[in-house]
Order: sequence, then structure tokens, then C-alpha cells
Amino acid sequence: MNYISIQNIDSLEKWVKEALKIKKKPLKNKTLGKNKTLGMLFFNSSLRTRLSTQKAALNLGMNIMVMNFTNEGWTLEFEDGAVMDSGASEHIKEAAAVVSQYCDIIAIRAFAGLIDREKDNAETVLSGFLKYATVPIINMESATGHPLQSLADAITMAEHTTAHRPKVVLTWAPHPKALPQAVANSFVEMMQLQEADFVITHPEGYELNREITKNSKIEYDQNKAFENADFIYAKNWSNYTDYGLITNSDPNWTVTTDKMKLTNNAKFMHCLPVRRNVIVMDEVLDSENSIVIEQATNRTYAVQLVLQKILESPPTPQGGTKTEKSKKIKK
Amino acid sequence: MNYISIQNIDSLEKWVKEALKIKKKPLKNKTLGKNKTLGMLFFNSSLRTRLSTQKAALNLGMNIMVMNFTNEGWTLEFEDGAVMDSGASEHIKEAAAVVSQYCDIIAIRAFAGLIDREKDNAETVLSGFLKYATVPIINMESATGHPLQSLADAITMAEHTTAHRPKVVLTWAPHPKALPQAVANSFVEMMQLQEADFVITHPEGYELNREITKNSKIEYDQNKAFENADFIYAKNWSNYTDYGLITNSDPNWTVTTDKMKLTNNAKFMHCLPVRRNVIVMDEVLDSENSIVIEQATNRTYAVQLVLQKILESPPTPQGGTKTEKSKKIKK
Amino acid sequence: MNYISIQNIDSLEKWVKEALKIKKKPLKNKTLGKNKTLGMLFFNSSLRTRLSTQKAALNLGMNIMVMNFTNEGWTLEFEDGAVMDSGASEHIKEAAAVVSQYCDIIAIRAFAGLIDREKDNAETVLSGFLKYATVPIINMESATGHPLQSLADAITMAEHTTAHRPKVVLTWAPHPKALPQAVANSFVEMMQLQEADFVITHPEGYELNREITKNSKIEYDQNKAFENADFIYAKNWSNYTDYGLITNSDPNWTVTTDKMKLTNNAKFMHCLPVRRNVIVMDEVLDSENSIVIEQATNRTYAVQLVLQKILESPPTPQGGTKTEKSKKIKK
Repeated sequence: MNYISIQNIDSLEKWVKEALKIKKKPLKNKTLGKNKTLGMLFFNSSLRTRLSTQKAALNLGMNIMVMNFTNEGWTLEFEDGAVMDSGASEHIKEAAAVVSQYCDIIAIRAFAGLIDREKDNAETVLSGFLKYATVPIINMESATGHPLQSLADAITMAEHTTAHRPKVVLTWAPHPKALPQAVANSFVEMMQLQEADFVITHPEGYELNREITKNSKIEYDQNKAFENADFIYAKNWSNYTDYGLITNSDPNWTVTTDKMKLTNNAKFMHCLPVRRNVIVMDEVLDSENSIVIEQATNRTYAVQLVLQKILESPPTPQGGTKTEKSKKIKK
Repeated sequence: MNYISIQNIDSLEKWVKEALKIKKKPLKNKTLGKNKTLGMLFFNSSLRTRLSTQKAALNLGMNIMVMNFTNEGWTLEFEDGAVMDSGASEHIKEAAAVVSQYCDIIAIRAFAGLIDREKDNAETVLSGFLKYATVPIINMESATGHPLQSLADAITMAEHTTAHRPKVVLTWAPHPKALPQAVANSFVEMMQLQEADFVITHPEGYELNREITKNSKIEYDQNKAFENADFIYAKNWSNYTDYGLITNSDPNWTVTTDKMKLTNNAKFMHCLPVRRNVIVMDEVLDSENSIVIEQATNRTYAVQLVLQKILESPPTPQGGTKTEKSKKIKK
Repeated sequence: MNYISIQNIDSLEKWVKEALKIKKKPLKNKTLGKNKTLGMLFFNSSLRTRLSTQKAALNLGMNIMVMNFTNEGWTLEFEDGAVMDSGASEHIKEAAAVVSQYCDIIAIRAFAGLIDREKDNAETVLSGFLKYATVPIINMESATGHPLQSLADAITMAEHTTAHRPKVVLTWAPHPKALPQAVANSFVEMMQLQEADFVITHPEGYELNREITKNSKIEYDQNKAFENADFIYAKNWSNYTDYGLITNSDPNWTVTTDKMKLTNNAKFMHCLPVRRNVIVMDEVLDSENSIVIEQATNRTYAVQLVLQKILESPPTPQGGTKTEKSKKIKK
């Protein structure tokens, strides 16, 4: 079993319930991970994911090996048949197979480059590990998705459940740096598994990948979108059509107290890190209705659930069954 | 309970005795830290502190998560009300609250910038964590203090106790790089808690912060200061008045064998790393009287005592009680 | 006991047998390393060594502290009597003694600089730690040797033992970057402890240090060397005579399927990382005969054997007995 995208969740409702159980007794399965090793490979910076994933693994009694690939390792090659006579020192074929010899689960963070849309959509790093690793893989945010974040978001929303069918709004907000669509993508996919009045709001031209948003409602008028909302989830992403560019930085999209007044006393959510007074005003983020720290708390239980499911599932080697890798890897 | 400065020590004599007990049986409390996690956040390089703190936490059975903020995380914002439209990606308000969700104790290293004295004195990073974290904080060297070092120094001096009231000399020495006053400050504060003839010697103009040195005796004639000393503690610091500048690099201040001859067969101390033949001559550092490695050894027991005290003390959340953070953080 | 070079192996045959026993039951000695701490110091990048060494230590129940010296610590001085008024912040004398206070075993990776042959042959970093540390030292690849790799290679070859006396070929292959001779050196030294028809093949002028190759057979005709070989071990190294230079990048030395056809259905070996289609063609590396991943797997058992032997051997302090360090280090 892998946890690569929201699509790997068979029943979101069930998963959320299980995660909330773990949250009540996080050390209940303290021996489940005994003598099992989680390898955490970072191709990008990380705070919440880095710490919450370690915390979850520790709660399960696992060993942890953290590796920052960029400064502790070297550049990898992902192209099949490449003549490796320049930058990259090692091919993903070897790297993934080798790490699989030392780890029982591999967790990977590798952001979008935001230069080449096709390449980002191909999920070069994550797919490479999926293909050539022989142990389960966890996505700690890839080019196009951040399913651990969205699972934590689902848990957090469940803790603030409304009596009625909730209205949930994903709102774009301005940001000085070009950011990936990963968090927004996974949030959309997660919401598509929920009973809710779900609305995405963003400036025209900032549409996410339509293969992901599918029939999800899009409303270009942010104020209208906010009306009667129960949850406002703010997030910036760079332009998906003019790929990776910042084509809008309109401060009118910043989440303000006035805008929150349009809602049904909505909870404010963000995956963090958040740019204060750019994405959202201090007054909103510091208000009682902000649940961003709870989202961060739930990152631990989201990933602990995933680790637990993997540890409890029968081993299903990846690459070993692929024709590209017909030879058996002895382990 | 926090360990932010020497002021947090209620009885130095008692603490030193307790630390020496720990040194005799370092594994006696091997289960005290079970299922507790120490988060170590480094904004600067570290060797002794990095390893001795981990060692101490391991002796107590704690889990450890180490994070180098600068290359594994990102820049933090510390200004209240900042419009975060440039460098910093995350505000200390979120960062501190979030790390508190995953760690039971947070240890922080953040040196002085040596550019803006007021800002360094404000201890931006440490104060930020103190204000917004909800778990105990340990200072692993901040802009103005290094209380773990000075506690280790006190332990080391206690192991070399003299029959008479000892004469202890803190001597400035030259150094090619501008260094913070942190170690010197905490050493002075620690000595103020001891029965001793304590003398600070440095070139005129190199006075430390007078709010810290208070009535501690200052002697500008190094030779005179060394007379009959039982302990010579050498350390460079940059100018506090002409803030952060090197206004003196006089090699006559280097600690030599000749100068040591003026003492009462004094022990030589330094916090390390030490520039050989700049701060102190090889002959002194390699002599029987040098106890710098013992100081390093005692770093483990100093921080183990602090960790132990925190683990044994009733939880007293930080930020949670502050008005700036009125909302409850569920953990 | 230290593990610095292949010379530290008293009986290769016995060691290989013991390692294979460990491989069968890697957790058999799970409590041997209890409350013992392995310090891993990296002065260079590492993937396999980093992870396999941690894995082995975890299998023995050890604590691990990993430190990347270059970005987490600072520059060390190795020269005796140096006036440290420029780059280096700490002398190896202090650094090694201090790390010994916190670790029971120190493992070090420090590559050749490839600029100054004499300096590289002096093994500045490793020798410094050997001289001034007071705990056992493990070589995780130094300027002139990589004995953990070669021990893993020996284990891997033993798993593919031939009925007859095997023919083993170490072949140089081209590479775009100047690489150290360390892996080749240790492989040669390891082969000198084995019953085998051992041949080194490389372009004329690429001779390794003759003090290492001794009487080992050198064959400049790669095709001739490959004839009837049972094991082909490919590895690039830079010129040892024109020290550290790339004086040959002839693609005819790349290991191809055609060349492998000259062999006795030989196994293909490489220490990894390997430059595909430069050192060796995809067809060879992806063939059934390639055992490079098995070599990586056996890295764990090689280092676990070394750790086990050190943990089981009576403590023999290093520096403490040296005249240079006559004073006793209390621990």
C-alpha cells in the first residue's frame, strides 16, 4: 500500500474516524512499528511535515532516518536511457532500489519546479520512487499533490462539524512568490469525497487543472463565494494556464475581517506557512475562528494513520513486479 | 519551567550538586523522558551543544527531532503586524505554536547578528518562541546568553574546588572574527551567584553590558588580573559599545605560559571552539592545567539536569496564558 | 578496535561468514548496542553509507547522532602548531576529544581533496580523529580507502561463489568528474586477502598507488582482462600519477554487453552511485548478472559486523595513550 494521493483513501469518512481515534490515544500502537524504519527523503524545505511525520513514526515505535537529498546527497537522474555525463551522479533506478534496502517505508517530498507543466504533472521524482522502490511510498508533498495535508484538513473539519451540510470555500489569495498548486489540488480532491457545498473562488485565469477540479463549482466573485460559508480555506497558487507565473497579485483577494463577516461565522483554515497581511489579515488569523494550528496538530494523526495502515497491510512490493525491473531484489 | 538564562537557576550550589550526581549515574533516569520529544532548532552552527544535548536527552530516554532552520526550513518573521510580502515565509506566531504541537520541549540556538544591539538585546528569536510556544523552552545559546555553557562551567569548577575562596578571572583575548558576548555574559551572571574573587579583564573600551556585569570587578591590566588566580577563563567578544566591531586585536592579550605563571597554578578554561595560538598558546591548552575538555564533557550533565528538571516540573504553558494568544491551542 | 582499512580485518573469510550470519538474523543482537551512541560525522555527501550505517546501528539497538560537519559545524584545523587566525574555527585536537565525550564510536567520512597527493595520503581528517579521539573510529570512506564498501563487496562475492577459483577483474571506466582512488584501493587490498585470479585493468598511466597494488596483476588490454572473468568490478578513479586529473575519458573503456560476452557469464559489480551509459551501459546494469543492489544491501551487514566487533571488543582508548595527549581525559 502507498499513500500517493487522495485517491488512495478508500473511505474518507472511515479514515477520519480512525484518525480521531488515534488522536485520543496516540501511543496505543507504540509497538506496531518496532524494528521498522521510515526513511524520509527531502528534496525541499519542510517544517510541519518534517516534524509531524517524525512524531507520528515515534508514536508507532518506528526508527527514522531523515535525509536532505540536496545538501546531504546528490543530484538524481530520472530520464530512461540517459547518458549520465554531466550533472546527475545517480539514476533513480539505483537510488530508489538502494534506499529500499534500508527502509521499510519511504516518504518523499519533491515540489513542482513550476517551469515545465508537463514534467511537473509527470511527478518525476515521486513516480521514479514508485516505479523503482520495493517498499511502500508516502507522498510528503509532490509536484501536484499534498494528500497528508488534505487528510489533516478533513480531520480538522470533522472536529468542527456543523449541524447542516457545510459550505466549504477554497479561496485563492495573493502571494509574492510563485507557489505550486499541490495543496489546492489535494484539497479539491478531498472535498470531492465529502458531502458539502464546495466552492472554489479565484480570479479568472487562475483555474486549477480541470482534470482535478472536474465538476467542482467555481465562483469568480470572492464575496459571493464567502456568503454563508462554514469554512474558508485560503491558499495561493501560481497560474496553471500561464504555467508557474504570477499573473495576479490583487490585494483585494486577501482574506479580511470584513469578508469573514459575509460568512456563517466560518472557521478560517490554511495549511501554513502563511504570509500574514498578504494571504490573510492578522485579525482573522488571530481570531477565535482560526483553526490553522489545529490543522497543524492533525498533521501528526493524518500521517500516523497512513503509517499504521501501511504497517498493518500485507507487503506489496512496487518495482519488483514491473517488467522494467524483472530481476528480484534480495532483501 | 524554561531555561533561558542563568536567572532561571534557583540555587546554583544545589544544581551543581545534582548535576554531579547525574554524572555519576547518567542512566539512572532512563525512563523519565519516555515518549517525550525534544525538538532542537538550530539557526546557527553547533558541535558541542548539538551532540551533548542529544546525548543528555538519550540518557533520559527522550525522542529527539533536530532541525536546522536555515537550510531545512525557511526565514521567519518576528515583527508584529508585518506585511509579509518579501523574505520571510512564516511568522514566529505560527512557527512556535506549530512546533509546540510536535515537541514536549523546544531547545533553540540563535546567535546575535552583531549589527543592531537593540535587536540583539531584544532576543528576537528566543523571545518569540517564549511568547508563542506552548511548551518549555531551553536556550542553546541566544544573542546575549549561553546559560547551558555556564552551568557546565560551574560544574567543572566545582570538580576542581580549591580549599580557599577561589580567584576566578574572565579574560578577553583576541580573535579574527567578531563574536557575540553571549558566553561572557552568562559566565559573569553565573559567577555572580558564587562565592569567589571574580575579576573581568579586557582592554579599555571592551566593557560588556553593564546591566549584566553590575558590580563585578573590572581590571584593565591583564597581568594584574592574573595574579594568584585559580581559574583563568578566556573568551573573545566583540565590542559592545562600538557594537559588534573588532576595535582591538592586540596579541598581547593572548593567554601564554608566562601569564599563567602569574597565577596560583590556575586551571585554564574556554568554552570551545578555541583558536589555538590566537586566544591561547598551544603550551597552555595542552598543559595539565587545561580543563577545556572536561568543560565539554560537563555540557551533557548540565543540559541533562535542565531536561530532568523540566520533565519533572508541572506543565506551565507559555503562550497559552498570554493575552496575545487568548485562543486555546488543543494539543 | 578501529576499522580504518582492510588491514584491520584479521581473517576475511571469517568476517564474511559472520556477516552472512548477521544477514540471516539482523536483529539477533538487538540489545548489544543498548545505551551506546554512534556519532556519524560527514565531511562529504553520502547516501548508501549514511543510511546503511544508521540501519546497522539501529539493528544493534544503538543511539545515533548524525552530523554534517560542513553546514552544521565549521572548518577544522589539522596542522600542529597552527596560528588559527584565519579560516578554521576549531582544531582537530579539541574536536576529536570533544566528540569522544558524547559518542562511544565515531564514524567519519572525509574524501580526498585530489589536489595534494601527499596530503590525501596523510589522511588528514581520519588520522586526526584517530590520534585525538578516545573512542573507536570507523572509516566511512576516507581519502585513500573505503573498507566498508570492500567488505560488503567480499560478502556479495561470497554469495555468488563459483565452483572454481574465480577470476575477478577490477576495471577502470571513464567518468566526467575527477574521482578519488579510495574504492579501488580498498577493493585491491581486499582481493589480496582472497584466493582468486585477480586482475586490474586500466589505461596505461592510470596505475593506482603501487604501495597498494603491490604484486596484483595489471593488464592494460581490457578485453583480454575480461576473458573468462567471473566478476567484473567497474570503477572510475582519477589519475594517481598526474594526481587528481582526468587524463583519459576514452568511451571504449565503458562496460558494454559485448565486453561482458567475453567473460564467463560474469557478475557485474559497482559500488554506486554509477553513471549509466558512461561507466556501464544500461543493458549490463539492468541485466540479471548485475549485483550492484545486492552490494548496497550488504553494506548494512558489513558495517553491522564492524559495529558488533567494536561493541564486543575491550575498550582500547586511542589518543589517551599517545604522548601528544598525555593528560587523562575524564569521561
